[in-house]
Amino acid sequence: MDVLSVGRGGPHVFVADLSIPTLDDDDRHHLGRVLRLRDADDMTLGDGAGRWCRAVYRVGKDPEPVGEVVTVAPSDPAVAVGFALIKGGRPEMVVQKLTELGVDRIVPLSADRSVVQWDEAKASTQVERFLRVAREAAMQSRRAWLPTVEELAPARDIHPAPGVVLAEPGGGPIDRSVRVVLVGPEGGWTDEELIGHPTVGLGPTVLRAETAAISAGTLLTALRDGRVLSAR
Amino acid sequence: MDVLSVGRGGPHVFVADLSIPTLDDDDRHHLGRVLRLRDADDMTLGDGAGRWCRAVYRVGKDPEPVGEVVTVAPSDPAVAVGFALIKGGRPEMVVQKLTELGVDRIVPLSADRSVVQWDEAKASTQVERFLRVAREAAMQSRRAWLPTVEELAPARDIHPAPGVVLAEPGGGPIDRSVRVVLVGPEGGWTDEELIGHPTVGLGPTVLRAETAAISAGTLLTALRDGRVLSAR
Repeated sequence: MDVLSVGRGGPHVFVADLSIPTLDDDDRHHLGRVLRLRDADDMTLGDGAGRWCRAVYRVGKDPEPVGEVVTVAPSDPAVAVGFALIKGGRPEMVVQKLTELGVDRIVPLSADRSVVQWDEAKASTQVERFLRVAREAAMQSRRAWLPTVEELAPARDIHPAPGVVLAEPGGGPIDRSVRVVLVGPEGGWTDEELIGHPTVGLGPTVLRAETAAISAGTLLTALRDGRVLSAR
Repeated sequence: MDVLSVGRGGPHVFVADLSIPTLDDDDRHHLGRVLRLRDADDMTLGDGAGRWCRAVYRVGKDPEPVGEVVTVAPSDPAVAVGFALIKGGRPEMVVQKLTELGVDRIVPLSADRSVVQWDEAKASTQVERFLRVAREAAMQSRRAWLPTVEELAPARDIHPAPGVVLAEPGGGPIDRSVRVVLVGPEGGWTDEELIGHPTVGLGPTVLRAETAAISAGTLLTALRDGRVLSAR
């Protein structure tokens, strides 16, 4: 289970090297100025790749690791949500929520009917931004593993494969064999994008694109973790 | 199933009286200026209480109902999500998402650890605002029934009852017997608030309050509609 085994242990922060932890400037500010930690307060450190340890906060210095480094296996099977670009600040919100929910791989997609189209420079900046949002959300939700955030890809380039489904009104219920759910733009998938892919429905109501992505992440992780079971 | 039986039929708008439909100013603006409907375009009208009919849009006039009024039963069993007040614009987002997902009753709560506390005037204004958000989201998601949005209530006033559970880390999995999930503030429930209530967990990761509420709404409606099954 991709989560620290300590329920409360103070804030959780990712560092590059657990043996010589160095806080980055944003995290240093967050711990000292926002959370107002005091000297010797408990915290945890992680490398975002399954390893973490307890530590104590030191005012004006880097934290001191205490105790052993614990290794957590990644969630098995890994699950992924892809979502077509949507307007406004909502893609960041989707990345944040999917990370909190325990989704392992997040795939920003450009779809035929995406209202938003990014050029290469914009796509690169946005993926950087998504990575920062995912890192913050993974720390906040106490995950041992950072999710993977992929480069922007055209939805048409995703080939049919076992466990890969497209969310589409009227599709069958999601089940435990599903590993990857792709959510289209507000205007829906085109026939060309749908070719060869099984579809799943996310309920009878019409969901906004970002609600569909969060709903897919909720159901995928709940089925993966055995908190609910497939209906078929 | 609380949703129109017509998949595409143009925009869906609530009116007070289906036989003499009168658009309110916001809806008139939305249809004419935002969606840019043309004369005789298809739309649907609903009363938000299970009744709806097809209609045609008329520029500068009220829409003309066409065809029979269809009556849709409310979802059975009804499901509810309560959520403790949270900072910023997020409560509106929660109300919007719960409505889209098909939740029937939305209960804003004040909790012992709610950072936000509203006086009576502010609470009344906010509930009005929630009602507007729920109405817009119910139209957008093509629901036949408007969800109920209750007045702000202290979480402590909710007495233990069959099917009522509090979301709490480490709680058991949600199952089909659950009808009402209450989600606490970022700081968690106090022991006094937890007294007598069963708890459910929404996964191993630590969820933000608004993510927990949306996750609860997703799982409650998916279990209710039989799209997933209880794990126990």
